[in-house]
Amino acid sequence: MEALAEHGIARLSIADVAARAGVNETTVYRRWGSREKLVLDAMLTASDEGIPVPDTGAVRTDLAAFARALAGYLATPLGRSVVRAAALSSDDPVLAESWRTFWQSRLAQAGVIVRRAAERGELPADTDAGLALELLCAPLQTRALLGHRPVEPDLPERLADLVLDGLRDRGQGGGVGLGCS
Amino acid sequence: MEALAEHGIARLSIADVAARAGVNETTVYRRWGSREKLVLDAMLTASDEGIPVPDTGAVRTDLAAFARALAGYLATPLGRSVVRAAALSSDDPVLAESWRTFWQSRLAQAGVIVRRAAERGELPADTDAGLALELLCAPLQTRALLGHRPVEPDLPERLADLVLDGLRDRGQGGGVGLGCS
Repeated sequence: MEALAEHGIARLSIADVAARAGVNETTVYRRWGSREKLVLDAMLTASDEGIPVPDTGAVRTDLAAFARALAGYLATPLGRSVVRAAALSSDDPVLAESWRTFWQSRLAQAGVIVRRAAERGELPADTDAGLALELLCAPLQTRALLGHRPVEPDLPERLADLVLDGLRDRGQGGGVGLGCS
Repeated sequence: MEALAEHGIARLSIADVAARAGVNETTVYRRWGSREKLVLDAMLTASDEGIPVPDTGAVRTDLAAFARALAGYLATPLGRSVVRAAALSSDDPVLAESWRTFWQSRLAQAGVIVRRAAERGELPADTDAGLALELLCAPLQTRALLGHRPVEPDLPERLADLVLDGLRDRGQGGGVGLGCS
C-alpha cells in the first residue's frame, strides 16, 4: 500500500514491493501470480481494515458510520492516493478490471448493511444495495478526487439521512404525493 | 476544449490553443489574462452548452433531465477528459481553485432547480441545493472517473427518484418513523 500510494497503480512494481517487504521477487510472484492480483489484495485488505462494515443495529447509524469511516480513510494520504490511482488507471483494461473486482467485493461486504435493514423492516426487501451504497459514498469520493468542496464534519450523517429520507420533507407534511394517508 | 481533452488541464498551453484558433498568443492573453481563466471559461461554456439546466415544471423531471444530460456529457470523450483532468489537477492549488470556481458557478446555475421546487412547494424551503445536486451528480462522476460500473440507461431517473424519495418505502407503509399519521 505504501508503494501504491507513492507510485500509483500503473507504475507500481513487484520488485519495489518485494524490496520494501524484504523478500525475494519470486516469493511475491509465487503467492500472488500477477501485479494486478497483488494490488487488488492489498486494496481489499487496506479497506477492510480502514473502512470496517458497521453493525450498530439500525440502518441510519450503520450508513453514517460507514460514510464516516470512508471519509476518514479518504482524508489519509493513503486513501486519497488509492482513489486517485483508481481514477488514473481506468483507461488500462487490466487495472480497470482489478478495480471493478475490488468494488464488487467491497459492495458485497457492505451490502450486508442494506440486507440487515431489510430483514429488520427498515428498508424495502428489493432495495438495490449497490446503488444505495454508491449514493452514500460517491459524494465523498468526488470530494476526495475533485477537491471542489471540503468534507464538513457532519457530512457523513447528512448523507446517511439524505440517502434514507430523500429531499422531500414528509415529517411536516410539506411534500407532495407522499403516499401517506 | 479540444486542447483540454487532449492534454489535460496541467499540460494545456496557450500557444497550442492560439494555434488551434488561428490567432496570436497575445490575443488570447489579452482577452483571458491567464491559462487558468481561459480553462475556466472554456469549461463553463462547454458545460453550459452540454448540460443545460432544465425547466420542465416539476422537480423530479428536472433532476432526471439534468442527470441525463450530465451522463451524456460524461460519456463523450470531451466530458470524460474534463472530469479526469479536474481529478488530476486537484493537487495544483491554482487549478484546484479554477475547478472550485467552476463547480460553484455551475452549482449556482443548477441550484435554480431546487429553488423553483421550493417555490412550488415540492421541496422544503431550506433544502441544501448544493448537496442535493451533488448527491444526484456524484454517482455519475465516480462511474466516469473510476469506471467501476457502466451507466445504465435508466440510472438518471433512478438517481432522481432516490434523491427525492430516499430508500425508505413510505408508499407501502413499510418504513419506520415516517412522521405520517
